Amino acid sequence: MSSGERLPSTRELAEQLHISRTVVVLAYEQLLAEGFVRGHTGSGTYVAEGLGTVRQSTHISGAKVNLSRFGSLAESATAKVSFPGNRSTPLRKDFAYGLSDVETFPFEMWRRILLRHAREAPVRELDYGPAAGSLALRDAISVHLRRSRAVVCDPSQVIVVNGSQQALDLIARVLIEPGDRVAIENPTYQGTREILRTAGARLLPVLVDRDGLNPAKLPEAAHIAFVTPSHQFPTGAILPLARRLTLLDWARKKGAVIVEDDYDGEFRYGEQPLESLQGLDTEGRVIYVGTFSRTVFSALRIGYLIVPKSLVPAFTSAKWLCDRHTATLEQETLAEFITNGMYERHLRRVRRRNTAHRKALLDAIHKYLGGRVEVTGDGAGAHVVLWPRKSVSESIVVEKAASQGVGIYGISQYFLTRPSRTGLMLGYSRMNEQEIREGIRRLSEIL
Amino acid sequence: MSSGERLPSTRELAEQLHISRTVVVLAYEQLLAEGFVRGHTGSGTYVAEGLGTVRQSTHISGAKVNLSRFGSLAESATAKVSFPGNRSTPLRKDFAYGLSDVETFPFEMWRRILLRHAREAPVRELDYGPAAGSLALRDAISVHLRRSRAVVCDPSQVIVVNGSQQALDLIARVLIEPGDRVAIENPTYQGTREILRTAGARLLPVLVDRDGLNPAKLPEAAHIAFVTPSHQFPTGAILPLARRLTLLDWARKKGAVIVEDDYDGEFRYGEQPLESLQGLDTEGRVIYVGTFSRTVFSALRIGYLIVPKSLVPAFTSAKWLCDRHTATLEQETLAEFITNGMYERHLRRVRRRNTAHRKALLDAIHKYLGGRVEVTGDGAGAHVVLWPRKSVSESIVVEKAASQGVGIYGISQYFLTRPSRTGLMLGYSRMNEQEIREGIRRLSEIL
Repeated sequence: MSSGERLPSTRELAEQLHISRTVVVLAYEQLLAEGFVRGHTGSGTYVAEGLGTVRQSTHISGAKVNLSRFGSLAESATAKVSFPGNRSTPLRKDFAYGLSDVETFPFEMWRRILLRHAREAPVRELDYGPAAGSLALRDAISVHLRRSRAVVCDPSQVIVVNGSQQALDLIARVLIEPGDRVAIENPTYQGTREILRTAGARLLPVLVDRDGLNPAKLPEAAHIAFVTPSHQFPTGAILPLARRLTLLDWARKKGAVIVEDDYDGEFRYGEQPLESLQGLDTEGRVIYVGTFSRTVFSALRIGYLIVPKSLVPAFTSAKWLCDRHTATLEQETLAEFITNGMYERHLRRVRRRNTAHRKALLDAIHKYLGGRVEVTGDGAGAHVVLWPRKSVSESIVVEKAASQGVGIYGISQYFLTRPSRTGLMLGYSRMNEQEIREGIRRLSEIL
Repeated sequence: MSSGERLPSTRELAEQLHISRTVVVLAYEQLLAEGFVRGHTGSGTYVAEGLGTVRQSTHISGAKVNLSRFGSLAESATAKVSFPGNRSTPLRKDFAYGLSDVETFPFEMWRRILLRHAREAPVRELDYGPAAGSLALRDAISVHLRRSRAVVCDPSQVIVVNGSQQALDLIARVLIEPGDRVAIENPTYQGTREILRTAGARLLPVLVDRDGLNPAKLPEAAHIAFVTPSHQFPTGAILPLARRLTLLDWARKKGAVIVEDDYDGEFRYGEQPLESLQGLDTEGRVIYVGTFSRTVFSALRIGYLIVPKSLVPAFTSAKWLCDRHTATLEQETLAEFITNGMYERHLRRVRRRNTAHRKALLDAIHKYLGGRVEVTGDGAGAHVVLWPRKSVSESIVVEKAASQGVGIYGISQYFLTRPSRTGLMLGYSRMNEQEIREGIRRLSEIL
């Protein structure tokens, strides 16, 4: 296609490619965000000027390309995060989720540490660093996790990666062969699903209920399970202790591995918060995945794996092969930010803010939506899911809300099977309490 | 093993694991560098104190691990870079290769740009960024490559990655299925070899001669070839124009893809420097790989791919799946560093310095080693290879030199077959001219 040409409508393209319209919408939003296309409400999407010709084909003449794996735009546009602000109608009340708290983050302090490391960096911090990460950061992470999440580990078990997406990729590389049967929660984060698909895994989805994954329903054939026990993504369910113990028992009996993605574990609102699943494991069967994308900021690209000691060499090798190591300056800065106590202090502030936002949100839901919706996910994390009791169309509600400047996000894209109910995701980390109330009031007029 | 325990000797372990002793030596050096073990000359290597127990097994009881892919330490310890300074005898004359010029790099200017971006970063630079890289950096890279390497591209074809290792990984993901036949140079960079192996490719090594890869010897079965035409790694051969054209012709006839790894393309000493292979390609069959690891600094972790337009969506998706995107602050800093002309100026300074070092090295080789060695690789890059005419043992020469404080590096680890001659790699970017002369003088006493 050339500059100024009109792209097919999202409905046309979805039909043509036999993929869900949500995926196409997200792909178009990504193209908008990256400046490749321009959008006009009601009049479609156009190739941006000055970009030359964009070919639609995904091949080199005669050459084989893994089209099945990477041929569509879909993967690049799906995310454990919503896409705010790429619409023609600005979303002034945007319940975006999966974002860090940039208002609270102490950037001045962060920059001071960054600059000192940039200034004093010895030559060894400019050359290639250790594949598993800087010793200072691995140490800081293990100390923090022991205290905050009751993770049982020492620094040698920490593998520093570029966010949790790379952690999932390394796990697939080290532990999954094509054809392997893998149990995953349904619904689940697309980053997990797509990494497993491209690794050739056979996905065995386990429908989650209000308490998350039911270990009694784990398929016999699976030898590895991917779970989000602290705040199931996306439903927000918290896995109760009894299920955690049954899950670990299942792994022991099967000789299986459990991957615990603790993407939201730092934010908990219950009276007796549950710590990590990894901390309950006595056999070294749990691989723990964490990220600083929501607690520091996403563009930093730092996450980590806590792996059993026996797997440290394999994961270190896999990380080396992927990209040798994560950028050093960011690692050293983050290590000091954690070690000097700033990170803990920041987390406390974010927890207080999230607690207030969550209360405003639940109060507004109670006031304006009353008995019309069920709520899940309010026990932890920074988003909830509204499940309207009356049957409504996800796309219609999402579009109507957007036209009123309210950003809400459908849950259906995360399901591997057709969802039986409509669910709407609402994040609350980036809005103030007044915006939250006004957003829910407007939403109540639509629902 | 526990703290203070003695590791098996490199010879014992090599025999036990049926791998080359060089690989074990490098693995031990990596462990030393990461602080997991301590070394005493002549008395072996010991597990460092305070690290708890290091298990030798690489498995979870009952669980399947891709041992064949990631089970050994070897991959994490092999590199397109030498490991200086991890020995008990310090290498005062270290011909380390694969390193950037940290003496010449304008860090003050770099830090000023870094700090300004850290200070002024708008919120969108703290949230997730575009998978293919920041538009400013993609633009800066395409402008630079068009001018400096005659690469034919526009910004939409640039995919920003975490160094060339990730570029190679993305290529393997997008273009290679298990069992695919892939032509690679012999010898070759291990990062390339191991990525292809873990992707399940069948490697078809093509022995390089003084002019690099001979396209007439490309195997019929290959549908993709990995080449380093500017400065063959590790021999340093420059692929002549006639061979380049034959290579492109082979790709056209076969419907094949060529991967051009231009790791050292910025440093050339000939009268009529050859530009990139990509620039000669009229069919979009060349994928170009570049890195800032040698021209800025390695710990930055930024490299790039230039891909045919038809493959942009596939590579963007693959990058998203791997780790969503490369850290934003580094990308923005680098974009400005290139755009404001600092990068070009720095490259000119490094070229001048390398030119002087190279002359000192070639003069010293002529003076002290005369007709006793052949030299390859002096036409480009920042390292040469010495090939002693008399039959000598690589490991004996390397160890003797090390005992004299001279760091030289055997080439045998890069071969896929048993090398017919001994080759010694000498980098010259980090030594001054006097050190170079003294190093060669000492080496002449050993050879």
